[in-house]
Amino acid sequence: MRRTSFAHWPCSIARTMDLLGDWWTPLVLREAFYGVRRFDGFQQSLGVARNTLADRLRRLVDEGLLEKRPYQTEPVRHDYVLTEKGRDFYGVLMAMNAWGDRWLADEQGPPVVFRHEPCGHTSRPEVVCADCGDPMTPANTSARLGPGYPARLAGRPDVRERFGA
Amino acid sequence: MRRTSFAHWPCSIARTMDLLGDWWTPLVLREAFYGVRRFDGFQQSLGVARNTLADRLRRLVDEGLLEKRPYQTEPVRHDYVLTEKGRDFYGVLMAMNAWGDRWLADEQGPPVVFRHEPCGHTSRPEVVCADCGDPMTPANTSARLGPGYPARLAGRPDVRERFGA
Repeated sequence: MRRTSFAHWPCSIARTMDLLGDWWTPLVLREAFYGVRRFDGFQQSLGVARNTLADRLRRLVDEGLLEKRPYQTEPVRHDYVLTEKGRDFYGVLMAMNAWGDRWLADEQGPPVVFRHEPCGHTSRPEVVCADCGDPMTPANTSARLGPGYPARLAGRPDVRERFGA
Repeated sequence: MRRTSFAHWPCSIARTMDLLGDWWTPLVLREAFYGVRRFDGFQQSLGVARNTLADRLRRLVDEGLLEKRPYQTEPVRHDYVLTEKGRDFYGVLMAMNAWGDRWLADEQGPPVVFRHEPCGHTSRPEVVCADCGDPMTPANTSARLGPGYPARLAGRPDVRERFGA
């Protein structure tokens, strides 16, 4: 099945999703955050088919979220290590996790909790405005045309209406 | 192609991804946050096949992120309106958007920016600890077994090692 490409949409959400490709990719990243570095480690903890895993790892390396580091020669074997770009994806996984904890956990509560070491709390992640620190919600946040929006689209009536331009 | 189900994994990230199903779903939600409420509106702005869209909307209604509200009788026509559960997904989209802005935008900058009305800044969303307000990063956050982790798995050596138990 040919997948629609979102890579060139003027939307960072669509571009992010296009890069991920499918849902295995964030789970591979989750494993990397748990400290998994080797192909067999990813394979065992995810139970994913080896060819699927090889494809997702290759994509994450090509896109610069993971880098391959040799840990053995003859034969060469690699670790897969998070880059800065990959580590920065943590916020996305934390936001997904918080939402899943709130809405999908059963009555026993969340399966996994996160301890924020600087303050010592077992805490939930929250998405806030980096300037003032208050939560960003659909009610208090509005989308505007950014500098990278394609000029050929920015004048369209539907686009102008959407962004209050 | 039969998709692996992540719904019963003891992981809120996997459960969230299972519910979403595929990448059209977050884009349908994005449109709902932009104020789109009608089938034809979603269809036009996403350019998605009508049967795919109908399926994703049905799923979002079944899962309680959108609700159908009749706006016309004979024939009955519905709006699709975000519920509290759906509105709460905003943080996930904002976190994705922030990551995409940082890592996938071209030299012109982000295509869309967000104005946080309470402080008046065009700002980036940030994922912080709800208790102390400081960023949650892979370096300062550790995962622990939560109350909803399945007891039959919690004693396994690999699980105990992963969660420092």
